[in-house]
Amino acid sequence: MQQMATQQRDVLSSKEPPSACTLVIFGANGDLTKRLLIPSLYDLAAADALSNDFSILAIDRVQATGESWARGLRETIESFAKDPTAEFSAAELNDTAWNSVVKTADYISGDFTQPELFQNLHGRLGTKNVIFYFAVPAGLFAVIAKNLGDAGLLKEDEGFYRRLIVEKPFGHDLATARQLDVDLLKQADESQIYRIDHFLGKEVVQSIMAMRFANSLFEPIWRREYIDHIEITAAETIGVEKRGKFYEPTGALRDMVPNHLFTLLCMVAMEPPINLSAKAVRDEKTKLLQAIRPLKPADYVRAQYGAGQINGQDVPAYRNEPDVSPESRTETYSAMRLYIDNWRWGGVPFYLRTGKRMKGRSTEVAIFLKRAPYNLFDRSEDMSGLANIIRLRLDPLHDIEMSFDVKKPGTGEILTLVQSVFSYDEFFGKETNVGYEALLYDCMKGDQMLFQSAEAIEAAWAAVEAINRPAETDLPVYAAGSEGPKEADALLAENGHKWLPVTAETIFSKTP
Amino acid sequence: MQQMATQQRDVLSSKEPPSACTLVIFGANGDLTKRLLIPSLYDLAAADALSNDFSILAIDRVQATGESWARGLRETIESFAKDPTAEFSAAELNDTAWNSVVKTADYISGDFTQPELFQNLHGRLGTKNVIFYFAVPAGLFAVIAKNLGDAGLLKEDEGFYRRLIVEKPFGHDLATARQLDVDLLKQADESQIYRIDHFLGKEVVQSIMAMRFANSLFEPIWRREYIDHIEITAAETIGVEKRGKFYEPTGALRDMVPNHLFTLLCMVAMEPPINLSAKAVRDEKTKLLQAIRPLKPADYVRAQYGAGQINGQDVPAYRNEPDVSPESRTETYSAMRLYIDNWRWGGVPFYLRTGKRMKGRSTEVAIFLKRAPYNLFDRSEDMSGLANIIRLRLDPLHDIEMSFDVKKPGTGEILTLVQSVFSYDEFFGKETNVGYEALLYDCMKGDQMLFQSAEAIEAAWAAVEAINRPAETDLPVYAAGSEGPKEADALLAENGHKWLPVTAETIFSKTP
Repeated sequence: MQQMATQQRDVLSSKEPPSACTLVIFGANGDLTKRLLIPSLYDLAAADALSNDFSILAIDRVQATGESWARGLRETIESFAKDPTAEFSAAELNDTAWNSVVKTADYISGDFTQPELFQNLHGRLGTKNVIFYFAVPAGLFAVIAKNLGDAGLLKEDEGFYRRLIVEKPFGHDLATARQLDVDLLKQADESQIYRIDHFLGKEVVQSIMAMRFANSLFEPIWRREYIDHIEITAAETIGVEKRGKFYEPTGALRDMVPNHLFTLLCMVAMEPPINLSAKAVRDEKTKLLQAIRPLKPADYVRAQYGAGQINGQDVPAYRNEPDVSPESRTETYSAMRLYIDNWRWGGVPFYLRTGKRMKGRSTEVAIFLKRAPYNLFDRSEDMSGLANIIRLRLDPLHDIEMSFDVKKPGTGEILTLVQSVFSYDEFFGKETNVGYEALLYDCMKGDQMLFQSAEAIEAAWAAVEAINRPAETDLPVYAAGSEGPKEADALLAENGHKWLPVTAETIFSKTP
Repeated sequence: MQQMATQQRDVLSSKEPPSACTLVIFGANGDLTKRLLIPSLYDLAAADALSNDFSILAIDRVQATGESWARGLRETIESFAKDPTAEFSAAELNDTAWNSVVKTADYISGDFTQPELFQNLHGRLGTKNVIFYFAVPAGLFAVIAKNLGDAGLLKEDEGFYRRLIVEKPFGHDLATARQLDVDLLKQADESQIYRIDHFLGKEVVQSIMAMRFANSLFEPIWRREYIDHIEITAAETIGVEKRGKFYEPTGALRDMVPNHLFTLLCMVAMEPPINLSAKAVRDEKTKLLQAIRPLKPADYVRAQYGAGQINGQDVPAYRNEPDVSPESRTETYSAMRLYIDNWRWGGVPFYLRTGKRMKGRSTEVAIFLKRAPYNLFDRSEDMSGLANIIRLRLDPLHDIEMSFDVKKPGTGEILTLVQSVFSYDEFFGKETNVGYEALLYDCMKGDQMLFQSAEAIEAAWAAVEAINRPAETDLPVYAAGSEGPKEADALLAENGHKWLPVTAETIFSKTP
């Protein structure tokens, strides 16, 4: 973690520390707290981007003191250093930074469903700035919010704020998402609610916006007149791992599409906001999501991974993973064709796909331009069929790659597709993924731009409502380590299109 | 030359040898013959891109035989190998290739102004394919053409062709250019006349056309709606060298602008041709040149280099060069602002400049895009004022460089201008400049695309007619090794524009 904090310093340390606040953690012993929340706070502290008057009030059912809780936490976090799959890992903690996070940590044991706990809180919190962090199962969101509201803990005044941070999932379909919004909005104003959905780091989101809205090289072509279709991919090589219990009732659609893929879709397709305020940006995202033509089952392909190989290693089929039913119909792959019914995008197909156990790991947007009006030139056979493509590769690489045709030197008028690449990593240095900590910081600063709005979440669920249903038959199977199911290829072939290979490499090698 | 031929082989050797022909060289002992024509023929032979039945008929005033002429030529060419400034140089000649060029060389001594010589020729040439190559001063073009015509040597028949190759200069103003065309066209059809102006290699010209007309990434923005202005630069670091006698009555405008810079202008600004035939491409070039709004003196800056430094070496002022008058008013630098009065380019300023003894050597076109409609972002101070730029760098580098803004990682919404580069040299391997030999080959094949048409040449001279006048006062002086005269900066400043630095480097360093 030390090392990580050092790499991040240039990004985080230039931030003004936010004003003092108390972070009340519901679920202080949960995994979310240990793996994401506390390490992120630590990174903020190590980068001097935490108020000196920051304090934690940890709440959970088990008995503890602030001190014993902090000690246990430190041991757990240090043990992550030995786990190569842990999101946060470091050889040792910097004591100063660690202490600034937990020095004044207090602990209350209590039951979140009982109003007494909240009366107690009321006395302790007085007129402080407070962020209530819900590190609890979604089923408890409503009751905690109600208890907070009933106890008057969500009333803001000129001198202080009260904010809620809730983590996804925000419902699992339109009805449950609406119910959650009703439950939360009964107790707090939308401006107090910070729905975290950490998928794109702030840098990546902002880099797409800058690329689109600062450059006249891209602005004129970013529309239906010049764009043929767009592919959005979030592919993983990992399988369901130990998350079978969560994944079985969820599946790839709910896990990835209305939140993550649609966030990418918004960044790429939304209209320019009138300014960069959270409200202006969130309004444009919402408008875009509301313009998605509701998906029909014919637009949708789902599939499940079978046994196969990843990096030369045999891996089991989804149905043989721990905590997964041997007759599961949960999709581990979702692909869809959607249309955005507005003036900019009318008629342009957007193809979205996400899958586990795919051939490569890659998050990217590929914009396929229409062809030049007519073809003056021969095209060499290997490249024929490919138009100009702008790829925004977001993970694991971060670059902008433009593919276009040049003339092959020599006889004839043979064209070859080549790439021009701008790599953020090469230019600015490899950037540590500053994600969760930036969101926490934004919440302390009161900037909701990267948090989900109720309207946007509901619009996203509404778009997928007709395909967000349990499968009635067994799903198509794709081999682990493959490019996905053939049904997804067929979906694009209907329009004469083709998925790009799932890979973090440049499409074509540099040697022609 | 051997080495050169090897590097070029991949480009030239894939060419089908043209049909048999006889090359009649007027001025067989001249510099042009030794330095350009014969080495180029040699390269074609070494690449097997010359007919087996190719033969030379050398003509000049001095007495010689085919054999003695060829021997003398070989000695001269081999001596070039020791001259580092020679355009062609190689350790030793490949005998096979050399012999295939000169094996059947014949030599006639004669006076080009006397009809007898041409009667003699008539008997020798019979019904062969013949290319008449004018390696003589421009003053002799008309009389040679007339003698050829009078002797019936320019009559083609179904079985054979008769072609003329003339080298620039094609006049020195509109009147002399017209007169030359009248003189030539009285004797031969335009389709028989090959006016060589070897400035852009075939590859470079074709690569610009491919880039523009094969890519929908560039096609939509290549117009007045999106382009703010365009800069075209052909800058040299060398001075007038030993060419004072030629240069004094010529100057930078005549030497470079209506031919070379306007060729670049055509490639960048002409409409898409209906196909890639010579006629279609030359028609579009002509249309473009005819659409240039005639330049006025207020659009034009000329200047002369003073003493200065190039690469840390003191170099003299132009007026102190050999064969240059100490009171010379010949310009060594020309810069102009011009407009193209057509629908694509109405209102877009084109800035052209060429100069000797400048800070860097660079031939390039820089397309400055208009800014995005409004600015959502902060811009870091160092980059402010620069919009997106597409640079086509042609010499000494060959690449396409796109500059656009990305967000600087970290706090704030600071933009930084970065570059995405596609390098032909890196992708395809460094390309030897295949120029003159490709033009000779095209002439043997009957492809006029890269040769100048009479109409285009006249249109070009017409555009500069009002500024193509002797200077009435001493010219502004710029220091050798500088970016040129301040008057040229002022010309752009009137529209709020600025020249790019004259350099073959990327505009901004890779380290921000």
